[in-house]
Amino acid sequence: MSVGKIVCAGLGPGDPDLISVRSDRVIRAARHVAFFRKAGRAGQARSIVQGMLRADAVELAMEYPVTTELPFDSPEYNDLLAAFYDDWAARLADLAQREDVVVLCEGDPFFYGSFMHLYTRLQGRAEVEVIPGIPGMVGCWNGTGQPITWGDDVLTVLMATLPEEDLLRHARASDALVIMKTGRNLPRVRRALAAAGRLDEAWLVERGTMPGQRVARLADVADGDCPYFAIVLVHGHGRRPEVPE
Amino acid sequence: MSVGKIVCAGLGPGDPDLISVRSDRVIRAARHVAFFRKAGRAGQARSIVQGMLRADAVELAMEYPVTTELPFDSPEYNDLLAAFYDDWAARLADLAQREDVVVLCEGDPFFYGSFMHLYTRLQGRAEVEVIPGIPGMVGCWNGTGQPITWGDDVLTVLMATLPEEDLLRHARASDALVIMKTGRNLPRVRRALAAAGRLDEAWLVERGTMPGQRVARLADVADGDCPYFAIVLVHGHGRRPEVPE
Repeated sequence: MSVGKIVCAGLGPGDPDLISVRSDRVIRAARHVAFFRKAGRAGQARSIVQGMLRADAVELAMEYPVTTELPFDSPEYNDLLAAFYDDWAARLADLAQREDVVVLCEGDPFFYGSFMHLYTRLQGRAEVEVIPGIPGMVGCWNGTGQPITWGDDVLTVLMATLPEEDLLRHARASDALVIMKTGRNLPRVRRALAAAGRLDEAWLVERGTMPGQRVARLADVADGDCPYFAIVLVHGHGRRPEVPE
Repeated sequence: MSVGKIVCAGLGPGDPDLISVRSDRVIRAARHVAFFRKAGRAGQARSIVQGMLRADAVELAMEYPVTTELPFDSPEYNDLLAAFYDDWAARLADLAQREDVVVLCEGDPFFYGSFMHLYTRLQGRAEVEVIPGIPGMVGCWNGTGQPITWGDDVLTVLMATLPEEDLLRHARASDALVIMKTGRNLPRVRRALAAAGRLDEAWLVERGTMPGQRVARLADVADGDCPYFAIVLVHGHGRRPEVPE
């Protein structure tokens, strides 16, 4: 019979002032705080809450496995990652038998969040509560100072890792676009947007709502000058379709 | 030379505990608070901040024009609405010459928000700051207790007012779906999802994160039992596409 529970606190886009009142309260009161990070890095989630944790908070840095031999998209690396999530799910479930644990999650935990790999593994093993957050893309479009959608605009969110023909098809079918995981995929994104006639409307946003926020027209950005977490945005213009009734 | 500014405070999905720390602070300190509402109603935005306003706050209820003669989608009603936004933009710009005004906005102001009709009119006439919020759809998918997207899922957000062939096309092309403005358009949504083979995966969520939240399988909901603001959701399953490099 568990006494504690696991609370996943959505952190929003990066500015600590944009954390929800509930997440803010939970984070400041937490005795155990877990977060993902790459080995050797402070970790983005941990950086967002800098100065907010209790002095006696126990920090659990969940460091992604590193290998020098395996490519990140190989089945072998995938197995390693699954074992990593299995291990941390077991440790958090065990801790939650006795005490509450807060897991930090950038953006909204249910929107492309890493937490879901723990969440699925924790079902039936611990009580889990998820506190929503402002997704990172919302912080990015806020940075452009223009509405991303209005009226009956269609918005599609997709990954730059998709095949170029998929990117093109969605760029043609939607009014507004959010394209994530850009980085080295930027040339493909650029070609697809150009083919759809939308390159001149596209923006690249990096570190939305954070210090060092960058908002640039995609046409002005060099292919090599785009980190993995930068987001490409195309705004809608307030579609007013003919509606059959 | 203006002294004040206009701050649009995103309120998030409805639970006041999910307002951002910054919006919460701005709302509690506000001397002038404006919000949209239908005539004769308390207004959803105003209800969310119940108990948060200063005792001496001046409330500006921006009541949508009502007519008994004109359909809401007629050009005549549209003209009336434009005059209504013109009038309030002028009043808020005038007030901001002397004092700060906070405009309440449900969800995120730049994501299908009514505030943008004022925002576009206020450009060059007053300083305007927009504080992002958790979009209503995020509160709704949180209510289902499942991630809406992971991996390389494609998410499309669209309005149930679109033609059925558009709904069907997007339902086939995307992994995850958010369909807004359902209400009396529900039969069309249901037909499109059924044709795309996705009706059994679809959920209807009403009042996400609020008292009286309802989460139901769409297949179990009668056509007449769906308010306008209810949202239909189809979750993604974590797509792993073959990526050409």
